[in-house]
Amino acid sequence: MRLQSLEDVLQEQIADLHSAETQLVAALPAMADAASDDKLKQAIRQHLEETREHVRRLDEVERGLGMSDNGAEECEAMAGLIREGKEIVSAEGMPQAKDAALIAAAQRVEHYEIAAYGTARALAGELGHDDAKDLLGATLDEESHANELLTKIATGGLLKAGVNQAAHSATV
Amino acid sequence: MRLQSLEDVLQEQIADLHSAETQLVAALPAMADAASDDKLKQAIRQHLEETREHVRRLDEVERGLGMSDNGAEECEAMAGLIREGKEIVSAEGMPQAKDAALIAAAQRVEHYEIAAYGTARALAGELGHDDAKDLLGATLDEESHANELLTKIATGGLLKAGVNQAAHSATV
Repeated sequence: MRLQSLEDVLQEQIADLHSAETQLVAALPAMADAASDDKLKQAIRQHLEETREHVRRLDEVERGLGMSDNGAEECEAMAGLIREGKEIVSAEGMPQAKDAALIAAAQRVEHYEIAAYGTARALAGELGHDDAKDLLGATLDEESHANELLTKIATGGLLKAGVNQAAHSATV
Repeated sequence: MRLQSLEDVLQEQIADLHSAETQLVAALPAMADAASDDKLKQAIRQHLEETREHVRRLDEVERGLGMSDNGAEECEAMAGLIREGKEIVSAEGMPQAKDAALIAAAQRVEHYEIAAYGTARALAGELGHDDAKDLLGATLDEESHANELLTKIATGGLLKAGVNQAAHSATV
């Protein structure tokens, strides 16, 4: 890897995100199918639609920056995150426990993206690429919102339902 | 993987974090060595010390939960994050660009941990494991602080120095 300038770093970040988002579009349908809680299933499906839009925005950012589409490397961190998600998709057990683990995996993904888009937006701003900065900022807001929604689903009833279900199972 | 209860999910999260933090203790020294900016180098070294303490806290959480130390699986996401970090450590180019890329990698790591500790703390709280909740919360606060410090270093001068250096190089 050669990083001659901040422009190189920005392009590296965008290429990494493009790989990450593309992997995520392929992985989210199985995670939605594996969810039992209706709100969680709906939230993952909605985020799949958003993620497709995020890929389109990255295409636009790449065109704006004049980046060549020369087959970027796979984002290894997202590959690891998705392998962990797949283990949960195929896990057996109590539906509420599996849902809690799915949320844990999904929030790791969201936080990865929040970090990556935050960096990319800051670099684009510093380098005067205002259109790229706005596009990256729009996606960053949606990733943050998706993360907050997952927290609300977990703490707004799903975890309590898991505790209650376990207590119920122990007494019958 | 079997997830029979939220207790199983919590233990899975703790084991994942233990692997992640242990990998990080091994990886951070090379990242500190690769940093050019003094504040960045210092921040990474300080976080290495904190990370050693995080491993000790996880040991304590595991004892409190009565978890057996039966060789947890490697955290694949952290393995991917660290492989990406190593690519930057060995990258060539402008020091400020490499520093910016190191910060980008380090913030992905911090966000992974913020997501993971946030989940683990919420589960511990819901399950009434107050000691574990407090220990996980203490680490969560330090991860958040480390992330904020990296943002400050990037936006407080490092990125501007990179832009200025590039402009200087272009005119001489």
